[in-house]
Amino acid sequence: MTYKIAILGASGYTGAELVRLISTHPSFEIVALSGDRKAGLPMSSVYPHLRHLDLPALCKIEDIDFANVDLAFCALPHATSQAVISKLPTTLKIVDLSADFRLRDPEAYAKWYGQPHTAIEMQSEAVYGLTEFYREDIKSARLVAGTGCNAATGQFILRPLIAAGVIDLDEIILDLKVGVSGAGRSLKEPFLFGELHDNAFGYAVGGKHRHLGEFDQEFSKIAGRPVEIQFTPHLIPATHGILATAYVKGDADAVYQTLVDQYADEPFIQVLPMGEVPALKHVRASNYCHIGVAADRRTGRAIVIAVLDNLAKGSSGQAIQNANLMLGLDETSGLTLAPVYP
Amino acid sequence: MTYKIAILGASGYTGAELVRLISTHPSFEIVALSGDRKAGLPMSSVYPHLRHLDLPALCKIEDIDFANVDLAFCALPHATSQAVISKLPTTLKIVDLSADFRLRDPEAYAKWYGQPHTAIEMQSEAVYGLTEFYREDIKSARLVAGTGCNAATGQFILRPLIAAGVIDLDEIILDLKVGVSGAGRSLKEPFLFGELHDNAFGYAVGGKHRHLGEFDQEFSKIAGRPVEIQFTPHLIPATHGILATAYVKGDADAVYQTLVDQYADEPFIQVLPMGEVPALKHVRASNYCHIGVAADRRTGRAIVIAVLDNLAKGSSGQAIQNANLMLGLDETSGLTLAPVYP
Amino acid sequence: MTYKIAILGASGYTGAELVRLISTHPSFEIVALSGDRKAGLPMSSVYPHLRHLDLPALCKIEDIDFANVDLAFCALPHATSQAVISKLPTTLKIVDLSADFRLRDPEAYAKWYGQPHTAIEMQSEAVYGLTEFYREDIKSARLVAGTGCNAATGQFILRPLIAAGVIDLDEIILDLKVGVSGAGRSLKEPFLFGELHDNAFGYAVGGKHRHLGEFDQEFSKIAGRPVEIQFTPHLIPATHGILATAYVKGDADAVYQTLVDQYADEPFIQVLPMGEVPALKHVRASNYCHIGVAADRRTGRAIVIAVLDNLAKGSSGQAIQNANLMLGLDETSGLTLAPVYP
Amino acid sequence: MTYKIAILGASGYTGAELVRLISTHPSFEIVALSGDRKAGLPMSSVYPHLRHLDLPALCKIEDIDFANVDLAFCALPHATSQAVISKLPTTLKIVDLSADFRLRDPEAYAKWYGQPHTAIEMQSEAVYGLTEFYREDIKSARLVAGTGCNAATGQFILRPLIAAGVIDLDEIILDLKVGVSGAGRSLKEPFLFGELHDNAFGYAVGGKHRHLGEFDQEFSKIAGRPVEIQFTPHLIPATHGILATAYVKGDADAVYQTLVDQYADEPFIQVLPMGEVPALKHVRASNYCHIGVAADRRTGRAIVIAVLDNLAKGSSGQAIQNANLMLGLDETSGLTLAPVYP
Repeated sequence: MTYKIAILGASGYTGAELVRLISTHPSFEIVALSGDRKAGLPMSSVYPHLRHLDLPALCKIEDIDFANVDLAFCALPHATSQAVISKLPTTLKIVDLSADFRLRDPEAYAKWYGQPHTAIEMQSEAVYGLTEFYREDIKSARLVAGTGCNAATGQFILRPLIAAGVIDLDEIILDLKVGVSGAGRSLKEPFLFGELHDNAFGYAVGGKHRHLGEFDQEFSKIAGRPVEIQFTPHLIPATHGILATAYVKGDADAVYQTLVDQYADEPFIQVLPMGEVPALKHVRASNYCHIGVAADRRTGRAIVIAVLDNLAKGSSGQAIQNANLMLGLDETSGLTLAPVYP
Repeated sequence: MTYKIAILGASGYTGAELVRLISTHPSFEIVALSGDRKAGLPMSSVYPHLRHLDLPALCKIEDIDFANVDLAFCALPHATSQAVISKLPTTLKIVDLSADFRLRDPEAYAKWYGQPHTAIEMQSEAVYGLTEFYREDIKSARLVAGTGCNAATGQFILRPLIAAGVIDLDEIILDLKVGVSGAGRSLKEPFLFGELHDNAFGYAVGGKHRHLGEFDQEFSKIAGRPVEIQFTPHLIPATHGILATAYVKGDADAVYQTLVDQYADEPFIQVLPMGEVPALKHVRASNYCHIGVAADRRTGRAIVIAVLDNLAKGSSGQAIQNANLMLGLDETSGLTLAPVYP
Repeated sequence: MTYKIAILGASGYTGAELVRLISTHPSFEIVALSGDRKAGLPMSSVYPHLRHLDLPALCKIEDIDFANVDLAFCALPHATSQAVISKLPTTLKIVDLSADFRLRDPEAYAKWYGQPHTAIEMQSEAVYGLTEFYREDIKSARLVAGTGCNAATGQFILRPLIAAGVIDLDEIILDLKVGVSGAGRSLKEPFLFGELHDNAFGYAVGGKHRHLGEFDQEFSKIAGRPVEIQFTPHLIPATHGILATAYVKGDADAVYQTLVDQYADEPFIQVLPMGEVPALKHVRASNYCHIGVAADRRTGRAIVIAVLDNLAKGSSGQAIQNANLMLGLDETSGLTLAPVYP
Repeated sequence: MTYKIAILGASGYTGAELVRLISTHPSFEIVALSGDRKAGLPMSSVYPHLRHLDLPALCKIEDIDFANVDLAFCALPHATSQAVISKLPTTLKIVDLSADFRLRDPEAYAKWYGQPHTAIEMQSEAVYGLTEFYREDIKSARLVAGTGCNAATGQFILRPLIAAGVIDLDEIILDLKVGVSGAGRSLKEPFLFGELHDNAFGYAVGGKHRHLGEFDQEFSKIAGRPVEIQFTPHLIPATHGILATAYVKGDADAVYQTLVDQYADEPFIQVLPMGEVPALKHVRASNYCHIGVAADRRTGRAIVIAVLDNLAKGSSGQAIQNANLMLGLDETSGLTLAPVYP
């Protein structure tokens, strides 16, 4: 059986990545692509790398016949996303890639995103889309909220460790090295080639990054008490990928064994042999996540490093993984492409 | 039906790319991977991005049971390749990715590769592997010689134009911009990150590049008289990809129409609308080739620009395309992955 | 003696490069920096790499007291530049880095820049700023028009060859590989890191680049008859630098000797030994230009490759070289910094 | 007065950087350049970017007449360095850029460098070359041991904080993002462009990096008790530069004020306004170091980020700064070149 798919906000990088991944999906057919400012254009004029595909032209959302759609991926900016989704048919299955339905507490949303939520009634319905930890809820969900890409990476490391009680909850430090595509195709000076090439810098330094809202919510829920981590992302001169280095206090062997046990049966999460650490490019353009653990026995800390591709496992790949579950398909359908290297 | 595949020389970039592409091929199963200096190691220790695949360990060629192999890809260095292939079972189907069987004239081989060919008897058997132009011969071939990656790019532009007689044969200039993976994983100073990053330079300048042997052979054959083009490759700070700019004397509209007609039914060659030119990254990690034509009416020249991924369409993708034909499969099997962007 | 310098349009890359170079100049003191939209800000808020320097804050042009200025560098966009310069005191020495005074023929200006020139009376006064060829005129000039960066690179190769009559004037092809800083700090999608990284593409293909106006003007003047070259620039993933590959018909030894003779006494132009070719990064951040020649004896062509840094020798370094001459200083003052490598 | 300078090991990146910096130094003249495997070659054949300079050819160390040398920079690999230096005239002033004389404790040397020190008697004579903290000792030293580039960056952040007692000594975490030139021009697979481009990975993870020997020695000395920090470097796809992110427990305002006070009069260390953080490229190719502080009031931590250029301030620039002091010159001579940007 083939499911009919719409992608709202197809002109951004996550939209293009959804198209790329779906083009090899055995059960998905793209029937609509929206792109408000580009409506009427063929997708190939926005993304010439998709020229070989037979795709519908970009259209306005209001021109989509949702009666003919089984599932919509919503790759719109936050705030826009809630406005659009609240008007879609209430029977439509939706995977939202924006930040709008990640935080269950409206006050937390208002705090981190600087404006009140306008579709609060839908927040309770939304399931947090970290597939490996919300799998059963996602299967029966109508609306799934894709996680932040940084938030996903950090949680793959820290959720099992917090749940198992093998690390000090007050001494968690997460230092990220992030490729620029996480910022989308937006025209901002720091993202110019001339500026970022051969450069690197921290941003949202000092506990200001919005994905902290997700970390706070999820880690506190797991721990049963408030957990606030130190999280600092750094932009590096790479297009794709997130490399997260977590510094945690605890026995490195226990940390390692907890991760091995957690992910033993997961198709996309690979825990490397003890002492080996992953490289950003080893998961490029794929839905895989590699995690490595090393011990610093001098300081009683463990270093845990995880890598994933922000556009794939960090957003569009995760979204398809969730859509597969929502539609009763094999969770890995269309997602087993090997990483591209070099 | 599933065909059993061996990859000889799997520890190089083209070997790894073969594995990546075959991992989504519906009819291929990898049964042997050779890597002489790495024999005994798992493929994931050489290429951790392939960690999720269930692959045979690297072995020595002499340890492969070729009775159990339907087709071998040979991704060894030139000279080594002919020595190895001449000892393989004469019934084994082989796609060679080296330079060893590209030149039909042993003297041309000796001239361009600096040593005599040691398996001359096999050269007559080998079919030149430029699929779009040798398709019928390849279907019945036992040994196919993959083309040089630069040679493929230039021929996609120039073969139809020479055949159609729409350009001046003595005024062909081909300027290439080439990513570094064409040089493989070899440890040479100019390929260090510190050296190549933010750099660019011509190499084999002055008509010295070995792929000229292929250009001479093929273009002269098509034209029915000697054709010698001016060909200069430049290394640019990119990992993948070849962008070829051809300067030809002739009517730009005739040039354009010739290419459109030639490739109208080709699944992997896309001719862009007149006046549009392609970008290197629009075919990244895919088997597609984009070609664009622009007119310089001041000088009576046409500029034709083609891009392909040297590791995919330029070698490993081409090799699989040929293997598909040799095994009676759909030519596009396993090769329709969309390019990765950005 | 110290000369008082103003930089108009200091917030762009060429403005910042002027500041960098002048910071080591023994006889220049910066007394004013204009930046219209950034007026009031310290230069370090726009360019933190200049934080250690004691510089005037950015101001509006109308707030500069030109009575206190010996020479102004004008690094404004074209069209703005002519409007501003036509209102400056007629005794002020000016080096303009824009395109506004490069073309002596107002019709050529209107053709290439799409609008009529509004300060035609000043065009006759302006001296074309290719120092090595207009040195004497520049010494006595009040207004010097800096050349296009691509135009400078191509002329360093081709002027001597055209003048000496050693090449076929109707068969000149110039293929450029250009770093992105030539486009300035402008917010355009193709210049985003995500777009340009690992990418390359031709632009203004088909004889459309504005610097052709300069080539036409200068080469036709030298040859005494119209000369129209084929010129195609390509953007490559580098920040700085232009690598120009010229394909010319003529005896390679004569070509080589002509260049050697021309540049024997030039402080900034280095002709490499016959057969050696230069690399983009060998002149990074310096005022040097390297030129190499190779012969393709098969086709009767010579390949000449030149490299320079578009922000230094291609614009801001050239501008200072000209200012030195206009002020009676040693031409090389402040310009002998070695290139930065790697 | 002009001092005669020899550079031993001039064929590496730090050697080339010494030549670049010295080329603008008002009081230094290079009289000898050694390069064992390249002896007899001109420096321009190893580093064409230095082609415009009038330099002695590379020679063997034994061919240098040290009677004619005022000061030698020794840019040899560790172990080689001690063997060479122990045979040089005992009156020669030496700045060593290797690791050989950084650690005062021979056992610490043997532990971190895996072999016994063979010139132990010289270790007591050597002064640790972190100029800003050993200035007076350096002035009268004969042998100065340049610091590790990572070690310098971390110490610029942490020394003042440890000395002032404003941070918890047992909770210091230092995460580095490092450009590849720190590894020199060595031919190793991870440093290939194809491997590192668009990549990033931790190395020496788990408290194994040799520069920990320096951190241990210096921090424990300052604190008067053992201090062991958690230090993890990551290679990022940049040529130059180190960005160090320190996570420290303590009041952010006290941390900030301590750094401001410490560096108020330093010519090369710039503390940014509170809350601003530096970027790697803002100090490219210069002797400057930028430091920024941000508070994470949720976790009671301060984040301190420092950037410097590993080849300049991290090694060759520091070496010249020290040589200036040893020769009684202005400490900043030849070192005030502005950073190169973009």
